[in-house]
Amino acid sequence: MSSFDLDSYLQTQQERVENLLRARSDEMGVHVPPRLLESMRYSLLAGGKRLRPVLCLAFAEAVLKKSTVSRVVEDAACSLEFIHTYSLVHDDLPSMDDDDLRRGRPTNHKVYGEAMAILAGDSLLTDAFALVAGGPEPVRGLLCRELAVGAGSAGMVGGQVLDIAEDRPAHIDYITRMHRLKTGALIRAACRMGVLAAGGDAEELDRADTYGDAVGLAFQIADDILDVTGDASSLGKPVGADAAAGRFTFPAVLGLEESKQLAAQKVAQAIAAVQTLEPGDGPLAALARYSVERRS
Amino acid sequence: MSSFDLDSYLQTQQERVENLLRARSDEMGVHVPPRLLESMRYSLLAGGKRLRPVLCLAFAEAVLKKSTVSRVVEDAACSLEFIHTYSLVHDDLPSMDDDDLRRGRPTNHKVYGEAMAILAGDSLLTDAFALVAGGPEPVRGLLCRELAVGAGSAGMVGGQVLDIAEDRPAHIDYITRMHRLKTGALIRAACRMGVLAAGGDAEELDRADTYGDAVGLAFQIADDILDVTGDASSLGKPVGADAAAGRFTFPAVLGLEESKQLAAQKVAQAIAAVQTLEPGDGPLAALARYSVERRS
Repeated sequence: MSSFDLDSYLQTQQERVENLLRARSDEMGVHVPPRLLESMRYSLLAGGKRLRPVLCLAFAEAVLKKSTVSRVVEDAACSLEFIHTYSLVHDDLPSMDDDDLRRGRPTNHKVYGEAMAILAGDSLLTDAFALVAGGPEPVRGLLCRELAVGAGSAGMVGGQVLDIAEDRPAHIDYITRMHRLKTGALIRAACRMGVLAAGGDAEELDRADTYGDAVGLAFQIADDILDVTGDASSLGKPVGADAAAGRFTFPAVLGLEESKQLAAQKVAQAIAAVQTLEPGDGPLAALARYSVERRS
Repeated sequence: MSSFDLDSYLQTQQERVENLLRARSDEMGVHVPPRLLESMRYSLLAGGKRLRPVLCLAFAEAVLKKSTVSRVVEDAACSLEFIHTYSLVHDDLPSMDDDDLRRGRPTNHKVYGEAMAILAGDSLLTDAFALVAGGPEPVRGLLCRELAVGAGSAGMVGGQVLDIAEDRPAHIDYITRMHRLKTGALIRAACRMGVLAAGGDAEELDRADTYGDAVGLAFQIADDILDVTGDASSLGKPVGADAAAGRFTFPAVLGLEESKQLAAQKVAQAIAAVQTLEPGDGPLAALARYSVERRS
């Protein structure tokens, strides 16, 4: 049993991220056309788990051995949520998943129209780089690279393309690669950026990398499992939505039990990777477990 | 009369940019799903004036006083065309301008479908940052910031939003601000990035800024004028397309003659700004004139 109080930790960190996102989008919004800013903030401030910024903050705090972090770390955390939010806004578009609801609210394009949703996504994506590129040398260059590699054609967007490919094979290797890119690459970047923004060393970066890769995959397997076993009110979308869209999921290919075992194995790998960085029981181990034990 | 041979300069530089774009997208494409890479390259390698990379190279060469530049300069030049191309791909989408043709060829979404066109645009945008963020310290951080500020919500995308706003006033101030963001911000970034990538000083950066702002506006005024007076074959799109879409243009608000005068005035401002950087007649002065004298 864990002695770490994850619920109260998550609540604190999510509020912290919420406040940071509000402040940063306020600051950046001074020269932005009001309707665009409104559309960006509609999706950016819609709640959610804030997993990527929370992981970024957790790694920075583990490196620094304290919970006060610099503005560089905060901006890195926010940039990850800017990127994640843009990907949701574009994924929901009629020509993509055509979703009407996101986190229980109408999707961006339902409220602001398709053109504005595309542009709000483009802005969130670009402004994520403005956020980290505004920081000090040399770390801002490192952070921009992590963000770009994690989010670009060989990362998150590449995974999205593998997901919508018509000829995709129902094979575990394909599905694993797809999710490693689609969800995993940005989660891995989040962990790495936390270490980099906090001035961590090469070994700490390596540990964050292993953890991020394992947690990213565990998180996605859990997502697929929740789609089969979860309930609509905590998910904020209909149960079975993914399967109904004909998507290939881990349970569909491996079966439910083997999927659960694989997720548990990934969680164990992640926890093992950070044992020197976080002796005893702390947020990193708890967040790894949370990636599969959550209910939404 | 100018003694500088712009035609041969442009041909050389455009071929150079074409080769760089081909090489960089090849290198970056190793880990990219093939269909995504194909869609990105379809639009990236479709020709065009390559104005932004050409300006970036020209400023770097003016600072360095030679025509061989470092990889940093080349990557900066390419990143600008990645961003410009993404903006065209997204602008052409059915929910935006709904264009079937671009540079005389079917638009990206006509060939690859809407979902892929959105994702190819997202990739080009993100990969632009991967390109410059792969360079050395400290310049890569500076370049990422220029690119993000020029392309984001307070730059290019902000201008696009002002352009599609339903309640936009037919006022010269509004149209000027719209174009200063929509086209001007990235052209200005191109000039500034050339100076920064070449290690130029603050005064040179300032001159590039003034030049970029003036040329950006001149270029857009000329675009509006060409839409009234040009011919479809050199434009690669129907004449009057902008006016037909009900857009507010410089000639519509100022009249044709006054628009031409304003453009000429901006060209003169630009040339004056770079006189110490480029004594005598050279590419910067010629490119400023070209921004209004071109036929497409």
